[in-house]
Amino acid sequence: MFDSGSIAVPTLLINETVCRSNIEFMQGKADKSGVQLIPHFKTHQSAVVGSWFRDAGTKAITVSSLSMATFFAGHGWDDITVAFPANIRESDTIKALAASVRLRIFILSAETAAHLANVLTHPVEYYIEIDTGYHRTGVPYDDHMLIGSVIRAASESGMLKFAGFYTHDGNTYDVRGRDAIMNIHRGTREKLEALRAKYAPAHPGLRISMGDTPGCSVAGDFAGLDEIRPGNYVYYDVTQTLIGSCNYDQIGTVLAAPIVARHEERLELVIYGGGVHLSKDSVTINGKTIYGLPVDLLKNGWSAPAEGCYIRKLSQEHGILKVTRAVFDRYKVGDVIGILPVHSCMTMDLMRFNGSIMIVT
Amino acid sequence: MFDSGSIAVPTLLINETVCRSNIEFMQGKADKSGVQLIPHFKTHQSAVVGSWFRDAGTKAITVSSLSMATFFAGHGWDDITVAFPANIRESDTIKALAASVRLRIFILSAETAAHLANVLTHPVEYYIEIDTGYHRTGVPYDDHMLIGSVIRAASESGMLKFAGFYTHDGNTYDVRGRDAIMNIHRGTREKLEALRAKYAPAHPGLRISMGDTPGCSVAGDFAGLDEIRPGNYVYYDVTQTLIGSCNYDQIGTVLAAPIVARHEERLELVIYGGGVHLSKDSVTINGKTIYGLPVDLLKNGWSAPAEGCYIRKLSQEHGILKVTRAVFDRYKVGDVIGILPVHSCMTMDLMRFNGSIMIVT
Repeated sequence: MFDSGSIAVPTLLINETVCRSNIEFMQGKADKSGVQLIPHFKTHQSAVVGSWFRDAGTKAITVSSLSMATFFAGHGWDDITVAFPANIRESDTIKALAASVRLRIFILSAETAAHLANVLTHPVEYYIEIDTGYHRTGVPYDDHMLIGSVIRAASESGMLKFAGFYTHDGNTYDVRGRDAIMNIHRGTREKLEALRAKYAPAHPGLRISMGDTPGCSVAGDFAGLDEIRPGNYVYYDVTQTLIGSCNYDQIGTVLAAPIVARHEERLELVIYGGGVHLSKDSVTINGKTIYGLPVDLLKNGWSAPAEGCYIRKLSQEHGILKVTRAVFDRYKVGDVIGILPVHSCMTMDLMRFNGSIMIVT
Repeated sequence: MFDSGSIAVPTLLINETVCRSNIEFMQGKADKSGVQLIPHFKTHQSAVVGSWFRDAGTKAITVSSLSMATFFAGHGWDDITVAFPANIRESDTIKALAASVRLRIFILSAETAAHLANVLTHPVEYYIEIDTGYHRTGVPYDDHMLIGSVIRAASESGMLKFAGFYTHDGNTYDVRGRDAIMNIHRGTREKLEALRAKYAPAHPGLRISMGDTPGCSVAGDFAGLDEIRPGNYVYYDVTQTLIGSCNYDQIGTVLAAPIVARHEERLELVIYGGGVHLSKDSVTINGKTIYGLPVDLLKNGWSAPAEGCYIRKLSQEHGILKVTRAVFDRYKVGDVIGILPVHSCMTMDLMRFNGSIMIVT
């Protein structure tokens, strides 16, 4: 039950029912395929939402920074992968974490491996991040010279254990529809399987691991993989619906924003909800750049997005919401409207500090 | 003096010398024109940076939310304007602030005026926000029926005092060069002057007030205005240099980011510094979307941006920095590079929580 009467400032509503359903759906698919789901917690950065994963059986988690790792270690998580190129300037933090939890990191260069091999005092498992075509970062999947040099440099220390290969298949974010996502997903899986086949004889037990929400959402199974590490699926967002990862009713979070002005000549509502709440992430729909989609807030959740309405611009605190005549007439100054975020990870990161968070069921 | 040896995570460097010079330059121009500078503190949201303004003579400040107003009231500021359409859902916060500081707010509708007139218990001054063509929000400058209805509704209470007209001349952000900025700036000033001439006889002492950094930076004087409220000029940023508001050596803040990977085949450096540090705000330079420009960090500041280099993409924590061969060869994994932000207000908002802040001189 949700009563908008208590909303005074931009407030991120988190729908526990929807989120738990998203968590259980992915866990069920992973269990059926016999792969370990190691969910990415960068999406929510929340001890409470983390506890919903624990309820669903999650034992190990993924994060994108050592500060998040430290935060979740403080909330009882003891098997944490930092899915970001190891930063040798944070060696002290790596050492401190490794002393208290099972820590897994990513290493992409022989220099980093050599540095860590030299300073670590507790065991750390490492994955070599692989670039299968997204070109954000990672070792090219066919660069065996570089892979070999990382493994050799790491093996100089008894503290670094080779855990396997990981890739973030970000190319799935650039396509639309299940078939296109699966084409990319299958190609990436095959490259990882080939790497495992090549390196497993010398490194028994090494694992292959993938991370993107679109691929993990639409794949029927995860046969052949050892681990999956999606994160966004707990909330989903407008971007994921456009890609084809989910439907609108699977989106687990919405920004409740007070309406502070109406401009009838432009059919625009001005909301208290700007770039410091939603983030400046945008998507293109029908040739228009949009920063969020409005929904009506209901007692037990929220409606589907209103057809033909969208956030057209964000300032620091203002959101400019383009609406139809019908929506314009329905809302007055002082009402609260919901905004589905374009990118829930970024919105959540901001809303931890700028505004309020409310869990609804 | 600055030693990059202490940088482990993304760290926002604030150059006190440059910022104080920016603060004093604008104060000097305002003093010469006999207008009151009421700087916008949303850019820095910092008690320390605020104290530099106090040193330069600032007595009254502008903010963009009641929570910022509450923050700065707690740091001894007692004349605060909230430059955002008054949100009637926050009436209790407005009342609490009005009880302790000189509070000025923006009212854009008769409904909001009537609501506040009904609930206020301490005096509040209000400006009518005017839309002179930017179309973000505000009463159209020629809509005298609406202006009249706001004034009438507000006058039902002895607590609301009509202070004048304000406009944010955001159109100056869409042009390039001094002449284009000044064309817009002059047109807006004339519209405000006409409003003052029309309403001053019935409301003696009402003031006209403008807010944008581009216009206030390039205008030689502020003759005719009563107040200016720019904010970004304390730091400036890449966007302001492109508009023509400043030179690169006037930029007062830079993100110091550790390099965590190098990709020679693409001449790209991967930095620990992503959308949760810089924000996803972007600008277009030579047809390319960019999210920041790299500089070398020096003992007493930083260099000019490296020609032909730019952040091409941001993930949550990753920044992908496209560089020239020369820059690529100069940096190794574990080094720290500086990134000039596209939009310093958004970067500052994020860096209050995600990473560190360091003041350098």
